[in-house]
Amino acid sequence: VERILTVDDLERLAIGAGILGTGGGGNPYLGKIRALQHLKEGAEIRVIDIDDVPDDALVTSVGGMGAPTVGVERLSRGDETLVAMRALEAHIGKSFTHLIAGEIGGSNAIAPLIVAAQTGLPVIDGDGMGRAFPELQMDTFMISGISPTPAALADHSHHNVVFDHIDNPSTLERYARVVTIQMGGGAGLAVPVMTGAQVKAAAIPGTMSLAIAIGDAVIATRSGKGDPVDAALSVSGGERLFAGKIVSVERRNEAGFAKGVLKLEGTGNDSGRSVSIDFQNENLIVRAENGEALAIVPDLICLVDEDSAEPITTEIVRYGLRVVVIGIPAPEQLKTDAALAVVGPAAFGYPGIEYVPMAGIYGQGITTASVR
Amino acid sequence: VERILTVDDLERLAIGAGILGTGGGGNPYLGKIRALQHLKEGAEIRVIDIDDVPDDALVTSVGGMGAPTVGVERLSRGDETLVAMRALEAHIGKSFTHLIAGEIGGSNAIAPLIVAAQTGLPVIDGDGMGRAFPELQMDTFMISGISPTPAALADHSHHNVVFDHIDNPSTLERYARVVTIQMGGGAGLAVPVMTGAQVKAAAIPGTMSLAIAIGDAVIATRSGKGDPVDAALSVSGGERLFAGKIVSVERRNEAGFAKGVLKLEGTGNDSGRSVSIDFQNENLIVRAENGEALAIVPDLICLVDEDSAEPITTEIVRYGLRVVVIGIPAPEQLKTDAALAVVGPAAFGYPGIEYVPMAGIYGQGITTASVR
Repeated sequence: VERILTVDDLERLAIGAGILGTGGGGNPYLGKIRALQHLKEGAEIRVIDIDDVPDDALVTSVGGMGAPTVGVERLSRGDETLVAMRALEAHIGKSFTHLIAGEIGGSNAIAPLIVAAQTGLPVIDGDGMGRAFPELQMDTFMISGISPTPAALADHSHHNVVFDHIDNPSTLERYARVVTIQMGGGAGLAVPVMTGAQVKAAAIPGTMSLAIAIGDAVIATRSGKGDPVDAALSVSGGERLFAGKIVSVERRNEAGFAKGVLKLEGTGNDSGRSVSIDFQNENLIVRAENGEALAIVPDLICLVDEDSAEPITTEIVRYGLRVVVIGIPAPEQLKTDAALAVVGPAAFGYPGIEYVPMAGIYGQGITTASVR
Repeated sequence: VERILTVDDLERLAIGAGILGTGGGGNPYLGKIRALQHLKEGAEIRVIDIDDVPDDALVTSVGGMGAPTVGVERLSRGDETLVAMRALEAHIGKSFTHLIAGEIGGSNAIAPLIVAAQTGLPVIDGDGMGRAFPELQMDTFMISGISPTPAALADHSHHNVVFDHIDNPSTLERYARVVTIQMGGGAGLAVPVMTGAQVKAAAIPGTMSLAIAIGDAVIATRSGKGDPVDAALSVSGGERLFAGKIVSVERRNEAGFAKGVLKLEGTGNDSGRSVSIDFQNENLIVRAENGEALAIVPDLICLVDEDSAEPITTEIVRYGLRVVVIGIPAPEQLKTDAALAVVGPAAFGYPGIEYVPMAGIYGQGITTASVR
């Protein structure tokens, strides 16, 4: 099955990817307007089912590396990711046949669509995270043991660096992160090199369609037929964790990441309560005043505007916004022991916190606002 | 003319390269014992005249990147530089025919000899600095406009990174430096890719022989026939700038460099006077108490033991050593406007200091101790 993306699809995807991005993945609005420009110029963007990918396809995932706060201050040139992919092709002496998103969150859901528009290559419906994560070792390609190299980074001057041989993805993350910082805080990335068979075994399928479907439901209700937040929850399988006003944003750029803490005071049913959310590009943990966790990475913690369900990402979150904090259960691929070692709370510096799936915290099917 | 290096040649080279290294270039003792091991195991190390290099030869310079203070604490595995060279060969799809030292200072004078022992490739008699400098853009290959990429770095786990396209050497320096830091503070480096014709036009010829000759003169006088420091000065064309005791060493590892300040109190003819020496891996400037410069980069500022003329490099300099500070005029290739823009005092953060050649400061042929 092949889907030719429309202007409306891109509008939907920007919303869905913004929600699934859990705060990170880069600003989806900027990605969207770049992709729309390509459609206006006549480019075709094709998304295909993962089942239709030949086993011998040559696939790479492409996107941006860096802090999302930098991405909105210092706009990308628009072809860094393409340059990174071409550098990787030149290095291996072969051409890619398919693209896939490394993460379905934020602008990195849209980045492969832009390269698709620039090259004509099809994009596989799926990704390596089912959300966004801040580091390279945190996708299911790396977790499943696919070699992290060769990989390539490119900057706004079309400089490129090829990571030719590094035997573990965390070391690639360290090396590529410092180069990204030197590249100005944001860079185009192509990693890894995969066969179609490897992608089919490792990717989280259908997430491009899921993101579009979430956006579709949100947009459909905005015209008045229902609540946009409920629509997003219904399609994503998520729950309302908290409704409130952002009263404090502590945000710093540290080691190439946007890190910080948000504080929210409750409104409506949540009046009189407050929560804090730690983030590192993406939202990592929501805690009540007594320190109890309401949701923990890898479960998705997303801020959306209380009226429109517009996603509120790390780089635009600010004092005074009225938001709903949504929790969406992580894909099963992120809940294995091997995955939790890389994307669980300990991997983000919370060694004392054990991951408990959202359903375990709240009881499946019960909305949290009423039972907390 | 081809010279097969002997064990004695390596002993001489370690002294001469230690002096020409002006404090940096890596610990020459460690380089020497590695090279000696290869000779013991039967390897042959050939050094050839630069005039004998064919125009169509394929040449790279190889050595270590990093802070010399790290190099003596965390020993290299011994084949990082070879791995970097092989990665560069694989990337360009061609094999190198000749090697050359990027800098004739410290262990980086010996690094290409080790790779020569490992590969059988000949080493060209010459280098890109006539001394050591801390940064990649500071050699005559880069100053003459040879492309800085492709280049390759390798670490102790044989991880390697290829800098495929970067259009200026200062950017390569920035990108490669941060990767080197992540690699543990030291890495093997191969850069750039040159033809024989380019090397002949850009290199400083004869510096491998010069370093060996300096060491030869020093060793010959140590047995009692003359003063080793005078012997080093005679062969190198240098002058005594100051004799004294090291009374203070401020040293820090900053941004991947060993940076700091030495203070010396005079002995003998220099009693009652003191000087300070700023260094960044290499010694940059010697100043009297009144702030007047006695020698300025790119002129060579070298510390040697007052009795043996053994070079005292940045990573071993310490309180209480009695040393002679030697100044050696920089090669003419480092004194052009283009070169001074890259290796003059302004390039090292001394915008207010104009480079004045040593001869201009002291009057040619007059020893400084008597005229200061």
